[in-house]
Amino acid sequence: MTNFSVSERVMTPEELESALRGIGAERYHNLHPFHKLLHSGKLRRGQVQAWALNRYYYQSQIPVKDAALIARLPTPELRRAWRTRLVDHDGDAPGTGGIARWLKLVEGVGLDPAYVQSTEGLLPATRFAVDAYVHFVSERSILEGIASSLTELFSPTIIAERVPNMLANYDYITKETLAYFTPRLTQAPRDAEFALSYVKQHATTREQQAAVLAALRFKCDVLWAQLDALYFAYVSPGLIPPGAFVPEDHVQASA
Amino acid sequence: MTNFSVSERVMTPEELESALRGIGAERYHNLHPFHKLLHSGKLRRGQVQAWALNRYYYQSQIPVKDAALIARLPTPELRRAWRTRLVDHDGDAPGTGGIARWLKLVEGVGLDPAYVQSTEGLLPATRFAVDAYVHFVSERSILEGIASSLTELFSPTIIAERVPNMLANYDYITKETLAYFTPRLTQAPRDAEFALSYVKQHATTREQQAAVLAALRFKCDVLWAQLDALYFAYVSPGLIPPGAFVPEDHVQASA
Repeated sequence: MTNFSVSERVMTPEELESALRGIGAERYHNLHPFHKLLHSGKLRRGQVQAWALNRYYYQSQIPVKDAALIARLPTPELRRAWRTRLVDHDGDAPGTGGIARWLKLVEGVGLDPAYVQSTEGLLPATRFAVDAYVHFVSERSILEGIASSLTELFSPTIIAERVPNMLANYDYITKETLAYFTPRLTQAPRDAEFALSYVKQHATTREQQAAVLAALRFKCDVLWAQLDALYFAYVSPGLIPPGAFVPEDHVQASA
Repeated sequence: MTNFSVSERVMTPEELESALRGIGAERYHNLHPFHKLLHSGKLRRGQVQAWALNRYYYQSQIPVKDAALIARLPTPELRRAWRTRLVDHDGDAPGTGGIARWLKLVEGVGLDPAYVQSTEGLLPATRFAVDAYVHFVSERSILEGIASSLTELFSPTIIAERVPNMLANYDYITKETLAYFTPRLTQAPRDAEFALSYVKQHATTREQQAAVLAALRFKCDVLWAQLDALYFAYVSPGLIPPGAFVPEDHVQASA
Protein backbone atom coordinates (compact mmCIF):
# COMPACT_ATOMS: atom_id res chain seq x y z
CA MET A 1 0.00 0.00 0.00
CA THR A 2 2.63 2.47 0.95
CA ASN A 3 4.72 1.28 -1.97
CA PHE A 4 3.62 1.84 -5.47
CA SER A 5 5.60 2.29 -8.62
CA VAL A 6 5.26 5.61 -10.34
CA SER A 7 5.17 5.42 -14.12
CA GLU A 8 7.62 7.38 -16.24
CA ARG A 9 5.07 9.84 -17.53
CA VAL A 10 1.51 10.94 -16.89
CA MET A 11 -0.96 8.53 -18.47
CA THR A 12 -3.90 9.70 -20.54
CA PRO A 13 -7.27 9.06 -18.84
CA GLU A 14 -7.80 6.14 -21.24
CA GLU A 15 -4.43 4.63 -20.37
CA LEU A 16 -5.26 4.98 -16.69
CA GLU A 17 -8.59 3.22 -17.21
CA SER A 18 -6.84 0.47 -19.06
CA ALA A 19 -4.28 0.07 -16.24
CA LEU A 20 -7.14 -0.11 -13.71
CA ARG A 21 -8.91 -2.77 -15.75
CA GLY A 22 -5.62 -4.65 -15.98
CA ILE A 23 -5.47 -4.87 -12.18
CA GLY A 24 -8.94 -6.38 -12.14
CA ALA A 25 -7.97 -8.92 -14.77
CA GLU A 26 -5.06 -10.05 -12.59
CA ARG A 27 -6.30 -9.65 -9.03
CA TYR A 28 -10.08 -9.54 -8.78
CA HIS A 29 -11.43 -12.28 -6.54
CA ASN A 30 -13.39 -14.02 -9.31
CA LEU A 31 -10.01 -15.72 -9.94
CA HIS A 32 -9.82 -17.14 -6.41
CA PRO A 33 -10.19 -20.93 -6.05
CA PHE A 34 -12.81 -20.48 -3.31
CA HIS A 35 -15.14 -18.82 -5.78
CA LYS A 36 -14.59 -21.58 -8.31
CA LEU A 37 -15.68 -24.11 -5.67
CA LEU A 38 -18.62 -21.94 -4.58
CA HIS A 39 -19.99 -21.48 -8.07
CA SER A 40 -19.46 -25.01 -9.31
CA GLY A 41 -21.51 -26.58 -6.51
CA LYS A 42 -18.51 -28.24 -4.88
CA LEU A 43 -18.99 -26.75 -1.42
CA ARG A 44 -20.77 -28.45 1.44
CA ARG A 45 -23.63 -26.52 2.97
CA GLY A 46 -21.51 -25.54 5.99
CA GLN A 47 -18.90 -24.04 3.69
CA VAL A 48 -21.55 -21.97 1.90
CA GLN A 49 -22.76 -20.89 5.36
CA ALA A 50 -19.25 -19.82 6.34
CA TRP A 51 -19.04 -17.74 3.15
CA ALA A 52 -22.41 -16.08 3.82
CA LEU A 53 -21.57 -15.41 7.47
CA ASN A 54 -18.18 -13.85 6.77
CA ARG A 55 -19.31 -11.88 3.74
CA TYR A 56 -22.12 -10.45 5.91
CA TYR A 57 -19.52 -8.51 7.86
CA TYR A 58 -18.16 -7.03 4.65
CA GLN A 59 -21.68 -6.03 3.56
CA SER A 60 -22.43 -4.54 6.95
CA GLN A 61 -19.41 -2.24 6.79
CA ILE A 62 -19.94 -0.92 3.26
CA PRO A 63 -22.26 1.91 4.38
CA VAL A 64 -19.79 2.66 7.19
CA LYS A 65 -16.98 3.22 4.69
CA ASP A 66 -19.32 5.12 2.37
CA ALA A 67 -20.43 7.42 5.19
CA ALA A 68 -16.77 7.97 6.12
CA LEU A 69 -16.13 9.06 2.55
CA ILE A 70 -19.24 11.24 2.32
CA ALA A 71 -18.13 12.98 5.53
CA ARG A 72 -15.01 14.10 3.67
CA LEU A 73 -16.49 15.03 0.30
CA PRO A 74 -16.50 18.82 -0.18
CA THR A 75 -19.68 19.54 -2.19
CA PRO A 76 -23.40 18.73 -2.04
CA GLU A 77 -23.11 17.35 -5.59
CA LEU A 78 -20.45 14.82 -4.65
CA ARG A 79 -22.10 13.89 -1.37
CA ARG A 80 -25.44 13.43 -3.13
CA ALA A 81 -23.91 11.21 -5.77
CA TRP A 82 -22.25 9.03 -3.16
CA ARG A 83 -25.35 8.99 -0.95
CA THR A 84 -27.15 6.67 -3.36
CA ARG A 85 -24.81 3.97 -2.06
CA LEU A 86 -26.08 4.46 1.49
CA VAL A 87 -29.63 4.10 0.22
CA ASP A 88 -28.72 0.96 -1.74
CA HIS A 89 -27.22 -0.77 1.28
CA ASP A 90 -29.23 0.59 4.21
CA GLY A 91 -32.56 0.84 2.37
CA ASP A 92 -35.45 3.24 2.90
CA ALA A 93 -37.42 1.23 5.43
CA PRO A 94 -36.92 -1.80 7.69
CA GLY A 95 -36.26 -4.95 5.66
CA THR A 96 -35.09 -3.09 2.54
CA GLY A 97 -31.58 -2.49 1.20
CA GLY A 98 -28.55 -4.66 0.54
CA ILE A 99 -27.78 -5.57 4.15
CA ALA A 100 -31.35 -6.77 4.75
CA ARG A 101 -31.17 -8.76 1.50
CA TRP A 102 -27.88 -10.31 2.59
CA LEU A 103 -29.58 -11.42 5.82
CA LYS A 104 -32.20 -13.14 3.65
CA LEU A 105 -29.35 -14.99 1.97
CA VAL A 106 -27.93 -15.91 5.36
CA GLU A 107 -31.32 -17.29 6.41
CA GLY A 108 -31.75 -19.07 3.08
CA VAL A 109 -28.58 -21.07 3.61
CA GLY A 110 -29.76 -22.09 7.07
CA LEU A 111 -28.10 -19.70 9.50
CA ASP A 112 -29.67 -17.69 12.33
CA PRO A 113 -29.47 -14.03 11.22
CA ALA A 114 -29.06 -12.86 14.82
CA TYR A 115 -25.98 -15.08 15.24
CA VAL A 116 -24.51 -13.73 12.02
CA GLN A 117 -25.24 -10.12 13.02
CA SER A 118 -23.52 -10.69 16.37
CA THR A 119 -20.28 -11.38 14.38
CA GLU A 120 -19.38 -13.89 17.10
CA GLY A 121 -18.41 -16.61 14.66
CA LEU A 122 -16.58 -14.30 12.26
CA LEU A 123 -13.06 -15.23 11.14
CA PRO A 124 -10.67 -12.66 12.67
CA ALA A 125 -9.00 -12.34 9.26
CA THR A 126 -12.32 -11.19 7.79
CA ARG A 127 -12.67 -8.54 10.46
CA PHE A 128 -9.09 -7.34 9.95
CA ALA A 129 -9.47 -7.12 6.16
CA VAL A 130 -12.84 -5.36 6.24
CA ASP A 131 -11.75 -2.94 8.98
CA ALA A 132 -8.64 -2.19 6.93
CA TYR A 133 -10.93 -1.09 4.10
CA VAL A 134 -12.93 1.23 6.40
CA HIS A 135 -9.72 2.70 7.80
CA PHE A 136 -8.27 3.14 4.32
CA VAL A 137 -11.27 5.14 3.14
CA SER A 138 -11.31 7.16 6.37
CA GLU A 139 -7.63 8.04 6.30
CA ARG A 140 -6.36 8.19 2.72
CA SER A 141 -7.05 10.92 0.17
CA ILE A 142 -10.54 11.27 -1.28
CA LEU A 143 -9.11 10.22 -4.63
CA GLU A 144 -7.78 6.97 -3.14
CA GLY A 145 -11.04 6.39 -1.26
CA ILE A 146 -13.01 6.71 -4.47
CA ALA A 147 -10.53 4.60 -6.45
CA SER A 148 -10.78 1.79 -3.89
CA SER A 149 -14.44 1.36 -4.84
CA LEU A 150 -13.52 0.49 -8.42
CA THR A 151 -13.70 -3.26 -7.90
CA GLU A 152 -17.33 -2.60 -8.81
CA LEU A 153 -16.13 -2.35 -12.39
CA PHE A 154 -15.65 -6.09 -12.27
CA SER A 155 -18.54 -7.26 -10.08
CA PRO A 156 -21.24 -7.71 -12.79
CA THR A 157 -19.08 -10.45 -14.34
CA ILE A 158 -18.83 -12.41 -11.12
CA ILE A 159 -22.53 -11.95 -10.31
CA ALA A 160 -23.53 -13.13 -13.79
CA GLU A 161 -21.46 -16.24 -13.16
CA ARG A 162 -22.53 -16.75 -9.55
CA VAL A 163 -26.29 -16.52 -9.65
CA PRO A 164 -27.17 -19.04 -12.39
CA ASN A 165 -24.45 -21.45 -11.27
CA MET A 166 -25.41 -21.40 -7.61
CA LEU A 167 -29.09 -21.83 -8.54
CA ALA A 168 -28.21 -24.79 -10.74
CA ASN A 169 -25.76 -26.43 -8.37
CA TYR A 170 -27.30 -26.18 -4.88
CA ASP A 171 -30.85 -27.46 -4.44
CA TYR A 172 -31.43 -25.43 -1.25
CA ILE A 173 -30.59 -22.12 -2.93
CA THR A 174 -33.48 -20.22 -4.49
CA LYS A 175 -33.88 -16.99 -6.44
CA GLU A 176 -35.19 -15.35 -3.26
CA THR A 177 -32.04 -16.40 -1.39
CA LEU A 178 -29.90 -14.70 -4.02
CA ALA A 179 -32.11 -11.59 -4.33
CA TYR A 180 -29.21 -9.48 -3.02
CA PHE A 181 -27.46 -9.74 -6.35
CA THR A 182 -30.23 -8.62 -8.72
CA PRO A 183 -30.15 -4.86 -8.01
CA ARG A 184 -26.34 -4.99 -7.83
CA LEU A 185 -26.30 -5.67 -11.57
CA THR A 186 -27.54 -2.13 -12.22
CA GLN A 187 -26.23 -0.37 -9.08
CA ALA A 188 -22.62 -1.45 -9.45
CA PRO A 189 -22.14 -0.26 -13.05
CA ARG A 190 -23.81 3.09 -12.26
CA ASP A 191 -21.54 3.55 -9.20
CA ALA A 192 -18.43 2.33 -10.98
CA GLU A 193 -19.05 4.69 -13.89
CA PHE A 194 -19.25 7.67 -11.54
CA ALA A 195 -16.12 6.64 -9.63
CA LEU A 196 -14.16 5.85 -12.79
CA SER A 197 -14.98 9.17 -14.35
CA TYR A 198 -14.02 10.99 -11.13
CA VAL A 199 -10.71 9.17 -10.98
CA LYS A 200 -9.93 9.74 -14.67
CA GLN A 201 -10.61 13.43 -14.24
CA HIS A 202 -8.77 13.99 -10.94
CA ALA A 203 -5.74 11.70 -11.12
CA THR A 204 -3.64 14.01 -13.27
CA THR A 205 -0.12 13.61 -11.87
CA ARG A 206 2.06 10.52 -11.97
CA GLU A 207 1.88 10.29 -8.19
CA GLN A 208 -1.91 10.53 -8.13
CA GLN A 209 -2.21 7.92 -10.84
CA ALA A 210 0.13 5.58 -8.96
CA ALA A 211 -1.89 6.14 -5.78
CA VAL A 212 -5.12 5.33 -7.61
CA LEU A 213 -3.71 2.08 -8.99
CA ALA A 214 -2.37 1.16 -5.55
CA ALA A 215 -5.79 1.85 -4.02
CA LEU A 216 -7.45 -0.58 -6.40
CA ARG A 217 -4.74 -3.19 -5.73
CA PHE A 218 -5.32 -2.69 -2.01
CA LYS A 219 -9.05 -3.25 -2.44
CA CYS A 220 -8.44 -6.39 -4.47
CA ASP A 221 -6.24 -7.58 -1.57
CA VAL A 222 -9.09 -6.91 0.87
CA LEU A 223 -11.43 -9.14 -1.14
CA TRP A 224 -8.81 -11.80 -1.88
CA ALA A 225 -7.67 -12.09 1.76
CA GLN A 226 -11.24 -12.83 2.83
CA LEU A 227 -11.38 -15.81 0.47
CA ASP A 228 -7.93 -17.01 1.53
CA ALA A 229 -9.17 -17.09 5.12
CA LEU A 230 -12.36 -18.93 4.16
CA TYR A 231 -10.43 -21.47 2.12
CA PHE A 232 -7.88 -22.03 4.89
CA ALA A 233 -10.48 -22.46 7.65
CA TYR A 234 -13.22 -24.32 5.82
CA VAL A 235 -11.75 -26.04 2.74
CA SER A 236 -8.09 -26.89 3.08
CA PRO A 237 -6.40 -27.52 5.44
CA GLY A 238 -9.67 -26.76 7.24
CA LEU A 239 -8.12 -25.32 10.40
CA ILE A 240 -10.81 -23.14 11.97
CA PRO A 241 -9.27 -20.46 14.22
CA PRO A 242 -10.28 -20.55 17.91
CA GLY A 243 -13.76 -19.12 18.45
CA ALA A 244 -14.86 -18.97 14.80
CA PHE A 245 -18.02 -20.58 13.35
CA VAL A 246 -17.82 -24.38 13.17
CA PRO A 247 -20.25 -25.83 10.58
CA GLU A 248 -22.04 -29.03 11.54
CA ASP A 249 -20.61 -30.82 8.51
CA HIS A 250 -17.02 -29.58 8.98
CA VAL A 251 -14.23 -31.89 7.87
CA GLN A 252 -10.59 -31.10 8.51
CA ALA A 253 -8.50 -32.01 5.49
CA SER A 254 -5.45 -34.11 6.28
CA ALA A 255 -2.58 -31.63 6.46
CA MET B 1 -14.36 -7.75 19.54
CA THR B 2 -17.48 -5.75 20.15
CA ASN B 3 -19.01 -8.87 21.66
CA PHE B 4 -17.74 -10.23 24.92
CA SER B 5 -19.49 -12.08 27.66
CA VAL B 6 -19.73 -10.35 30.99
CA SER B 7 -19.37 -12.63 34.01
CA GLU B 8 -22.01 -12.80 36.72
CA ARG B 9 -19.94 -11.03 39.33
CA VAL B 10 -16.71 -9.05 39.66
CA MET B 11 -13.70 -11.37 39.73
CA THR B 12 -10.93 -10.98 42.26
CA PRO B 13 -7.62 -9.83 40.74
CA GLU B 14 -6.35 -13.41 41.06
CA GLU B 15 -9.39 -14.82 39.27
CA LEU B 16 -8.91 -12.27 36.51
CA GLU B 17 -5.26 -13.28 36.14
CA SER B 18 -6.27 -16.89 35.97
CA ALA B 19 -8.88 -16.13 33.28
CA LEU B 20 -6.23 -14.23 31.29
CA ARG B 21 -3.81 -17.15 31.54
CA GLY B 22 -6.62 -19.46 30.46
CA ILE B 23 -6.99 -17.50 27.22
CA GLY B 24 -3.29 -17.97 26.54
CA ALA B 25 -3.54 -21.69 27.21
CA GLU B 26 -6.29 -21.95 24.58
CA ARG B 27 -5.42 -19.35 21.97
CA TYR B 28 -1.76 -18.33 22.07
CA HIS B 29 -0.02 -18.97 18.76
CA ASN B 30 2.43 -21.50 20.19
CA LEU B 31 -0.46 -23.92 19.51
CA HIS B 32 -0.61 -23.09 15.80
CA PRO B 33 0.53 -25.83 13.37
CA PHE B 34 2.80 -23.36 11.55
CA HIS B 35 4.90 -22.97 14.68
CA LYS B 36 5.10 -26.72 15.15
CA LEU B 37 6.51 -27.01 11.62
CA LEU B 38 8.85 -24.06 12.14
CA HIS B 39 10.33 -25.39 15.35
CA SER B 40 10.63 -29.01 14.34
CA GLY B 41 12.75 -28.25 11.28
CA LYS B 42 10.07 -29.27 8.80
CA LEU B 43 9.99 -26.01 6.85
CA ARG B 44 11.89 -25.37 3.64
CA ARG B 45 14.19 -22.37 3.67
CA GLY B 46 11.71 -20.32 1.61
CA GLN B 47 9.01 -20.96 4.19
CA VAL B 48 11.29 -19.78 6.99
CA GLN B 49 12.02 -16.71 4.85
CA ALA B 50 8.30 -16.03 4.43
CA TRP B 51 7.88 -16.23 8.20
CA ALA B 52 10.79 -13.82 8.82
CA LEU B 53 9.58 -11.40 6.15
CA ASN B 54 6.00 -11.26 7.41
CA ARG B 55 6.90 -11.17 11.07
CA TYR B 56 9.20 -8.22 10.29
CA TYR B 57 6.13 -6.10 9.62
CA TYR B 58 4.71 -7.04 13.01
CA GLN B 59 8.01 -6.12 14.69
CA SER B 60 8.21 -2.84 12.80
CA GLN B 61 4.80 -1.73 14.05
CA ILE B 62 5.27 -2.58 17.73
CA PRO B 63 6.87 0.79 18.58
CA VAL B 64 4.12 2.48 16.54
CA LYS B 65 1.45 0.92 18.73
CA ASP B 66 3.49 1.59 21.86
CA ALA B 67 3.91 5.26 20.93
CA ALA B 68 0.17 5.47 20.23
CA LEU B 69 -0.45 4.18 23.76
CA ILE B 70 2.16 6.43 25.37
CA ALA B 71 0.50 9.41 23.67
CA ARG B 72 -2.65 8.60 25.63
CA LEU B 73 -1.16 7.74 29.03
CA PRO B 74 -1.90 10.47 31.59
CA THR B 75 1.19 10.57 33.83
CA PRO B 76 4.99 10.78 33.49
CA GLU B 77 5.22 7.60 35.60
CA LEU B 78 3.09 5.56 33.23
CA ARG B 79 4.67 7.03 30.09
CA ARG B 80 8.16 6.36 31.49
CA ALA B 81 7.27 2.77 32.30
CA TRP B 82 5.91 2.18 28.82
CA ARG B 83 8.82 4.05 27.17
CA THR B 84 11.21 1.20 27.94
CA ARG B 85 9.38 -0.70 25.18
CA LEU B 86 10.28 1.97 22.65
CA VAL B 87 13.91 1.70 23.70
CA ASP B 88 13.80 -2.10 23.47
CA HIS B 89 12.48 -2.09 19.91
CA ASP B 90 13.97 1.08 18.41
CA GLY B 91 17.29 0.93 20.28
CA ASP B 92 19.59 3.74 21.38
CA ALA B 93 21.74 3.98 18.28
CA PRO B 94 21.72 2.75 14.67
CA GLY B 95 21.88 -1.04 14.50
CA THR B 96 20.57 -1.56 18.05
CA GLY B 97 17.11 -2.60 19.28
CA GLY B 98 14.65 -5.31 18.40
CA ILE B 99 13.83 -4.15 14.86
CA ALA B 100 17.51 -4.05 13.91
CA ARG B 101 17.98 -7.50 15.43
CA TRP B 102 15.02 -8.79 13.44
CA LEU B 103 16.68 -7.49 10.28
CA LYS B 104 19.74 -9.56 11.24
CA LEU B 105 17.46 -12.57 11.40
CA VAL B 106 16.03 -11.68 8.00
CA GLU B 107 19.55 -11.48 6.57
CA GLY B 108 20.57 -14.69 8.32
CA VAL B 109 17.83 -16.63 6.54
CA GLY B 110 18.98 -15.24 3.20
CA LEU B 111 16.71 -12.30 2.46
CA ASP B 112 17.63 -8.78 1.40
CA PRO B 113 16.74 -6.54 4.38
CA ALA B 114 15.87 -3.64 2.05
CA TYR B 115 13.32 -5.81 0.26
CA VAL B 116 11.82 -6.87 3.56
CA GLN B 117 11.71 -3.28 4.85
CA SER B 118 9.93 -2.17 1.67
CA THR B 119 7.05 -4.54 2.69
CA GLU B 120 6.51 -5.18 -1.01
CA GLY B 121 6.29 -8.94 -0.62
CA LEU B 122 4.17 -8.82 2.54
CA LEU B 123 1.01 -10.92 2.70
CA PRO B 124 -1.97 -8.53 2.74
CA ALA B 125 -3.43 -10.54 5.62
CA THR B 126 -0.33 -9.77 7.69
CA ARG B 127 -0.74 -6.07 7.04
CA PHE B 128 -4.43 -6.15 7.90
CA ALA B 129 -3.86 -8.04 11.17
CA VAL B 130 -0.94 -5.89 12.32
CA ASP B 131 -2.68 -2.65 11.37
CA ALA B 132 -5.74 -3.86 13.28
CA TYR B 133 -3.53 -4.10 16.37
CA VAL B 134 -2.22 -0.55 15.93
CA HIS B 135 -5.75 0.76 15.42
CA PHE B 136 -7.03 -1.17 18.44
CA VAL B 137 -4.43 0.38 20.73
CA SER B 138 -5.03 3.84 19.24
CA GLU B 139 -8.79 3.73 19.55
CA ARG B 140 -9.82 1.56 22.51
CA SER B 141 -9.52 2.42 26.18
CA ILE B 142 -6.09 2.61 27.80
CA LEU B 143 -7.05 -0.43 29.86
CA GLU B 144 -7.78 -2.46 26.71
CA GLY B 145 -4.61 -1.18 25.03
CA ILE B 146 -2.53 -2.35 27.98
CA ALA B 147 -4.39 -5.67 28.23
CA SER B 148 -3.74 -6.39 24.55
CA SER B 149 -0.01 -6.51 25.32
CA LEU B 150 -0.49 -9.42 27.70
CA THR B 151 0.44 -12.08 25.15
CA GLU B 152 3.91 -11.32 26.51
CA LEU B 153 2.92 -13.41 29.52
CA PHE B 154 3.22 -16.42 27.24
CA SER B 155 6.14 -15.50 24.98
CA PRO B 156 9.04 -16.83 27.11
CA THR B 157 7.60 -20.35 26.70
CA ILE B 158 7.55 -20.13 22.93
CA ILE B 159 11.01 -18.55 22.76
CA ALA B 160 12.47 -21.25 25.01
CA GLU B 161 11.04 -23.80 22.59
CA ARG B 162 11.94 -21.94 19.41
CA VAL B 163 15.57 -21.02 19.86
CA PRO B 164 17.14 -24.41 20.74
CA ASN B 165 14.91 -26.25 18.27
CA MET B 166 15.60 -23.92 15.36
CA LEU B 167 19.32 -24.04 16.11
CA ALA B 168 19.24 -27.83 16.19
CA ASN B 169 17.01 -28.30 13.15
CA TYR B 170 18.23 -25.80 10.53
CA ASP B 171 21.92 -25.82 9.65
CA TYR B 172 21.86 -22.27 8.24
CA ILE B 173 20.47 -20.77 11.43
CA THR B 174 23.00 -19.54 13.98
CA LYS B 175 22.86 -17.99 17.44
CA GLU B 176 23.58 -14.60 15.85
CA THR B 177 20.61 -15.03 13.52
CA LEU B 178 18.32 -15.61 16.50
CA ALA B 179 19.88 -12.86 18.66
CA TYR B 180 16.54 -11.04 18.61
CA PHE B 181 15.09 -13.50 21.08
CA THR B 182 17.73 -13.37 23.83
CA PRO B 183 16.82 -9.99 25.39
CA ARG B 184 13.13 -10.78 24.92
CA LEU B 185 13.47 -13.47 27.60
CA THR B 186 14.00 -10.74 30.23
CA GLN B 187 12.15 -7.84 28.57
CA ALA B 188 8.86 -9.67 28.03
CA PRO B 189 8.40 -10.87 31.64
CA ARG B 190 9.28 -7.40 32.98
CA ASP B 191 6.76 -5.77 30.60
CA ALA B 192 4.11 -8.39 31.18
CA GLU B 193 4.42 -8.05 34.93
CA PHE B 194 3.85 -4.30 34.70
CA ALA B 195 0.86 -4.67 32.37
CA LEU B 196 -0.67 -7.50 34.37
CA SER B 197 -0.44 -5.58 37.61
CA TYR B 198 -1.98 -2.50 35.93
CA VAL B 199 -4.84 -4.56 34.57
CA LYS B 200 -5.47 -6.37 37.87
CA GLN B 201 -5.59 -3.04 39.66
CA HIS B 202 -7.73 -1.10 37.15
CA ALA B 203 -10.21 -3.66 35.81
CA THR B 204 -12.57 -3.47 38.74
CA THR B 205 -16.02 -3.72 37.17
CA ARG B 206 -17.52 -6.70 35.34
CA GLU B 207 -17.55 -4.68 32.11
CA GLN B 208 -13.90 -3.68 32.45
CA GLN B 209 -12.90 -7.25 33.20
CA ALA B 210 -14.83 -8.51 30.19
CA ALA B 211 -13.18 -5.83 28.01
CA VAL B 212 -9.74 -6.86 29.26
CA LEU B 213 -10.36 -10.52 28.46
CA ALA B 214 -11.71 -9.58 25.02
CA ALA B 215 -8.62 -7.44 24.37
CA LEU B 216 -6.34 -10.40 25.05
CA ARG B 217 -8.48 -12.64 22.84
CA PHE B 218 -8.28 -10.01 20.11
CA LYS B 219 -4.48 -9.93 20.38
CA CYS B 220 -4.29 -13.73 20.21
CA ASP B 221 -6.40 -13.48 17.03
CA VAL B 222 -3.91 -10.96 15.60
CA LEU B 223 -1.03 -13.39 16.12
CA TRP B 224 -2.99 -16.48 15.04
CA ALA B 225 -4.28 -14.88 11.83
CA GLN B 226 -0.71 -14.12 10.77
CA LEU B 227 0.19 -17.81 11.02
CA ASP B 228 -3.00 -18.88 9.24
CA ALA B 229 -2.01 -16.64 6.33
CA LEU B 230 1.56 -18.00 6.28
CA TYR B 231 0.33 -21.58 6.38
CA PHE B 232 -2.23 -20.97 3.63
CA ALA B 233 0.21 -19.21 1.29
CA TYR B 234 3.39 -21.17 1.92
CA VAL B 235 2.52 -24.59 3.36
CA SER B 236 -0.91 -25.84 2.37
CA PRO B 237 -2.58 -25.33 -0.02
CA GLY B 238 0.33 -23.02 -0.88
CA LEU B 239 -1.69 -20.41 -2.75
CA ILE B 240 0.38 -17.23 -2.63
CA PRO B 241 -1.81 -14.13 -3.04
CA PRO B 242 -1.05 -11.91 -6.05
CA GLY B 243 2.02 -9.73 -5.45
CA ALA B 244 3.29 -11.47 -2.31
CA PHE B 245 6.81 -12.91 -1.83
CA VAL B 246 7.42 -16.07 -3.84
CA PRO B 247 10.26 -18.21 -2.39
CA GLU B 248 12.61 -19.83 -4.89
CA ASP B 249 11.76 -23.27 -3.50
CA HIS B 250 7.99 -22.75 -3.42
CA VAL B 251 5.81 -25.81 -4.02
CA GLN B 252 2.05 -25.56 -4.32
CA ALA B 253 0.38 -28.43 -2.49
CA SER B 254 -2.21 -30.28 -4.52
CA ALA B 255 -5.53 -28.83 -3.45
